[in-house]
Amino acid sequence: MINKLQSPKNLAWHDVRIDGGFWGERQATNRERTIPAVYHQTKITGRLDAWKLDWEPGKQPEPHIFWDSDTAKWMEAVGYSLATHPNPEFERQVDEVINLIEKAQLPDGYANSHFIAVEPENRWRNLRDQHELYCAGHLIEAAVTYSHATGKRKLLDILCRYADHIDSTFGPNDRQKRGYPGHPELELALVRLFRATGEQRYLNLSKYFIDERGQQPHYYHQEALERGEDPLNFWAKTFAYYQAHQPIREQTTLTGHSVRALYLYSGVADIALETGDDVLLDVLHTLWDNLTQHMLYITGGVGSTHTNEGFSFAYDLPNEMAYSETCASIALIYWAQRMFCLDPDSRYLDVIERALYNAMLSGVSYEGSLFFQANPLSSYPNVSPYGHWNSVMTGPHHHRTEWFDVACCPSNLARLVASVGGYFYSVTPTRVYVHLYNQNRSQVLVGGNPVQIEQQTDYPWNGDVHLTITTARPTRFELALRIPHWCHDFRIGLNGVGISREPERGYVVIEREWQTGDTVTVTFAMSIERIVSHPQVRQDAGRVALQRGPIIYCLEEVDNGAALANVSLPSDAQLTYDFDSNLFGGVGTISGDALRADPAQWGGELYLAESVRKIPPTPFTFKAIPYCFWANRQLGEMRVWLLKS
Amino acid sequence: MINKLQSPKNLAWHDVRIDGGFWGERQATNRERTIPAVYHQTKITGRLDAWKLDWEPGKQPEPHIFWDSDTAKWMEAVGYSLATHPNPEFERQVDEVINLIEKAQLPDGYANSHFIAVEPENRWRNLRDQHELYCAGHLIEAAVTYSHATGKRKLLDILCRYADHIDSTFGPNDRQKRGYPGHPELELALVRLFRATGEQRYLNLSKYFIDERGQQPHYYHQEALERGEDPLNFWAKTFAYYQAHQPIREQTTLTGHSVRALYLYSGVADIALETGDDVLLDVLHTLWDNLTQHMLYITGGVGSTHTNEGFSFAYDLPNEMAYSETCASIALIYWAQRMFCLDPDSRYLDVIERALYNAMLSGVSYEGSLFFQANPLSSYPNVSPYGHWNSVMTGPHHHRTEWFDVACCPSNLARLVASVGGYFYSVTPTRVYVHLYNQNRSQVLVGGNPVQIEQQTDYPWNGDVHLTITTARPTRFELALRIPHWCHDFRIGLNGVGISREPERGYVVIEREWQTGDTVTVTFAMSIERIVSHPQVRQDAGRVALQRGPIIYCLEEVDNGAALANVSLPSDAQLTYDFDSNLFGGVGTISGDALRADPAQWGGELYLAESVRKIPPTPFTFKAIPYCFWANRQLGEMRVWLLKS
Repeated sequence: MINKLQSPKNLAWHDVRIDGGFWGERQATNRERTIPAVYHQTKITGRLDAWKLDWEPGKQPEPHIFWDSDTAKWMEAVGYSLATHPNPEFERQVDEVINLIEKAQLPDGYANSHFIAVEPENRWRNLRDQHELYCAGHLIEAAVTYSHATGKRKLLDILCRYADHIDSTFGPNDRQKRGYPGHPELELALVRLFRATGEQRYLNLSKYFIDERGQQPHYYHQEALERGEDPLNFWAKTFAYYQAHQPIREQTTLTGHSVRALYLYSGVADIALETGDDVLLDVLHTLWDNLTQHMLYITGGVGSTHTNEGFSFAYDLPNEMAYSETCASIALIYWAQRMFCLDPDSRYLDVIERALYNAMLSGVSYEGSLFFQANPLSSYPNVSPYGHWNSVMTGPHHHRTEWFDVACCPSNLARLVASVGGYFYSVTPTRVYVHLYNQNRSQVLVGGNPVQIEQQTDYPWNGDVHLTITTARPTRFELALRIPHWCHDFRIGLNGVGISREPERGYVVIEREWQTGDTVTVTFAMSIERIVSHPQVRQDAGRVALQRGPIIYCLEEVDNGAALANVSLPSDAQLTYDFDSNLFGGVGTISGDALRADPAQWGGELYLAESVRKIPPTPFTFKAIPYCFWANRQLGEMRVWLLKS
Repeated sequence: MINKLQSPKNLAWHDVRIDGGFWGERQATNRERTIPAVYHQTKITGRLDAWKLDWEPGKQPEPHIFWDSDTAKWMEAVGYSLATHPNPEFERQVDEVINLIEKAQLPDGYANSHFIAVEPENRWRNLRDQHELYCAGHLIEAAVTYSHATGKRKLLDILCRYADHIDSTFGPNDRQKRGYPGHPELELALVRLFRATGEQRYLNLSKYFIDERGQQPHYYHQEALERGEDPLNFWAKTFAYYQAHQPIREQTTLTGHSVRALYLYSGVADIALETGDDVLLDVLHTLWDNLTQHMLYITGGVGSTHTNEGFSFAYDLPNEMAYSETCASIALIYWAQRMFCLDPDSRYLDVIERALYNAMLSGVSYEGSLFFQANPLSSYPNVSPYGHWNSVMTGPHHHRTEWFDVACCPSNLARLVASVGGYFYSVTPTRVYVHLYNQNRSQVLVGGNPVQIEQQTDYPWNGDVHLTITTARPTRFELALRIPHWCHDFRIGLNGVGISREPERGYVVIEREWQTGDTVTVTFAMSIERIVSHPQVRQDAGRVALQRGPIIYCLEEVDNGAALANVSLPSDAQLTYDFDSNLFGGVGTISGDALRADPAQWGGELYLAESVRKIPPTPFTFKAIPYCFWANRQLGEMRVWLLKS
């Protein structure tokens, strides 16, 4: 049973000051390199100036239907960053674009740089494919974030007018269109706008979109007929690509485009919470289990196949060809956080932690200005998630690039990293949840009382976390500390005295009247774990991956030589953890004894009978680095899953 | 140094009477089911009636540019079959089509059902893509074969006129086109026509095509300009797809479309032999080694990738996604046989045997009327060599079908099986090579003397072969018996007395004055071999395949249950060979103890730390069947490469 009043509220990013540690470093890089790189690319590719509406037929580039979403996510990233790190130059850049948007907005509130300039006659005529509502959603998210960060209302006012226009255009009334976004996103954005403004219509519109999705007669079918098109002849071939093949309440399996799916279910979770809809929660539980039990990479990546940028069938997790889009892991984090609010359990945070430290972070280079869209778990020359080059089309190693034609990932990653503090804590009237561990100082209001929580830790390299409480006056509440799924042994000390607690739904709960100076020490044993996959994952059969804490490790050719597919770990291999302070600003590495079938010992034969000649594998000492930092040095082979021997 | 006079001549199919055994059964099925099925499909799809030239704009189906090649290969298959098994109905069907072709042929000799009926204005305007010369080549092969089998010259005369027309159209003179086939095949066909007719011009034209290929200025570039097209904008993107990216004498690597490549190098080998061109032989040796050391499946399949229906990069041999086209293995057999004539060594026959018994034969169902174009080495629901179905487009298991839109394989397989006797023996003035072992009675002329060789054997299930010689008069010659690459222990008896010989280039040579009643007994030890791949083949890393004699084995779900990716063979597993007389008319099977990580023992977790819960694999008894007979029972998983444990 959903109880909105009792449900945890996430402590907002601006109340969590990350002043160092792992995420402090990532946020510094994000501010200094990533956000400026995203601005630069968004600017030079014409996305920002598209709002000048000066495009003319024949002029290249033509503003694209999803350019506004890239602009919006950059503005949103700036908004998150400004809240904790003021930056007049960032603010000036965003304000300049807001002024353009203000001038571009039509009198009826419509605001889309492509459709106003390029094809005004086609406004709202193809919701299935044209991304208008998707762009509106991202602009709304930017507006909510930026107005909160700066106190400036201009963008928010623009977007309220746009949302009002959308609200009048779509709905069940006779003169309204019964459509809904082909690329979900607006659903969750409208709930954010409702929460920021208190305007109930925005919530109702979001709920309408969710309830209408997949109903018969099918809107996408009808609008195709209205365009004079064959409604069965479209790129994606099936409405499952859009999660619109059936009403949401009947859906049980993750299908289609993964970012669409995970933005959608994020919005559904918001609506379930706001409306107390237990049936929707059941649907979400089914879908969550379907994903996490069948379609989740060990890195927190999702969406196995490039074909649909999305979900494959159950247990199909190709490594070299893994699409595992950066945006999909980000969208998974959004959904997981909303699931926690509906159902406070650490399993959602386990998935957030898995995605944050691995697949999501792999999306950006260590120095901060190069990006992956696809995050495979194995890399080999001439092969990439985008396809299998043959000798006719020999290609390089999969590598990060400055930008993409479809550039959803860089700005999305920038806003996620800038707002990562927003995933650290949740609060109920009687409890403070501590989800993630990283150096930070945070302001919580619990039961109306201000409480400061400070963490000191070298997590994820070290499992020791020291929390210090500061209160204005002694305050009774429960401090709920997440015990990560990967941790099999932990100790807790309260003001220096060891205490024993069993976790409840993944959290150790300490209730007391807290006062300034109280300290809690948590020690998570961080051993090197050999992880195996479910036997149905045929791509990982006979293989093992290495994990320590939340970090998934990989071998790279630069440290280990080539032919990594043949590297095997003996079951009794000694594995050693080291902190390498010279690598990527200081990261943990794993080394140990391994074996490798050595190509150099073979002749020209492709196949050998073991009865004729058996070539024993060669022992060597391997070095594994965190997966999230791969492809930052000399390009070469990479592999997460190693043979067992 | 090529010495044409001393080089072995292959004993023709019509001099090898296969009256039972493994290939006797295959040929019976081919006659009774496959050739009639190919006729039926060729007929009902309109390929045969296309020669009536009654197509009109708008009529469906439109005769396709390569339909004539399908018709030709069916006629050629009938020709091979008639030579040893007369069949008036087959002959009537072919004669009917020959009459149509005769009427369709234009006065200048041109004969192509598509271009005459559909687009006469485009004759010879796009050699790169339009398959006219390719179809001509197959028609010539059919004509040579059919005229030899039946003594009827009509088709041969038609094709000589067509070849004369082609010869006058293409060449180095000013008024000739400097083109050559976009899909090679005519090169080898012209050499066959030269050998059948003695007309030197046909040989010269073949040599011209081979020497001109890939020269600058590039013909495909120029003809595209003449068509008013952008010469850089074409489907294949590179002339390497056509093996026309550089002159043949500069080629060192197998690239592009595999059937194109292997037909081409077959023709090049013919030209090298006929012209004594040692430089071409060096080129062919380099290319042969490149293929067999880097790009050959254990089944004798070639061409890893569907994208180009062809070669990938070195050591890239995907199993589930293996394209391994039936036609490519057939073309490989053609090339290998020609390499043997240039360079008499058993390694070429080892490849022929590998392809014949495995990848080629997998192309047809046991009952004979269903076909594979692609022959993967692993099968899993929703995945096929043609692509990776995702949950949006869930597909069945890869399975054989009655026909294909591009139907090159069925008729090609029919002609190969019908002519398989032509791969059994080669003869020089002083030597008879015995390449393949199967029950047969054959007529050889050695040094002008007729010799009959009879084989009695249950090969490939049993390694005992009994040869009986019958001569008109005592005849001195060398009997050269191939010792297959897979055989590590053999014994030879001459008239009941064991003799000891070391193989020379893979053949044990017995020289004597042979007379009627002489017998040779060869016993090839057939043990079950565990085969491993070169460590650079990352797809087979940590895995082992089972082979006995020339037969590659596989596990199917119907015998072993599912989750075959997780089946492992312990290094000390007892493996047992049995002859199962109830399966596919009697085939060898392998059984033994194996282990499998059992999905049933897992819960909902996708990943487990071995330190938390280690689920030991479950022992079971596996049963492996010959790969060539897979997918003939209940569809399900299949796998050649098994984990080692």
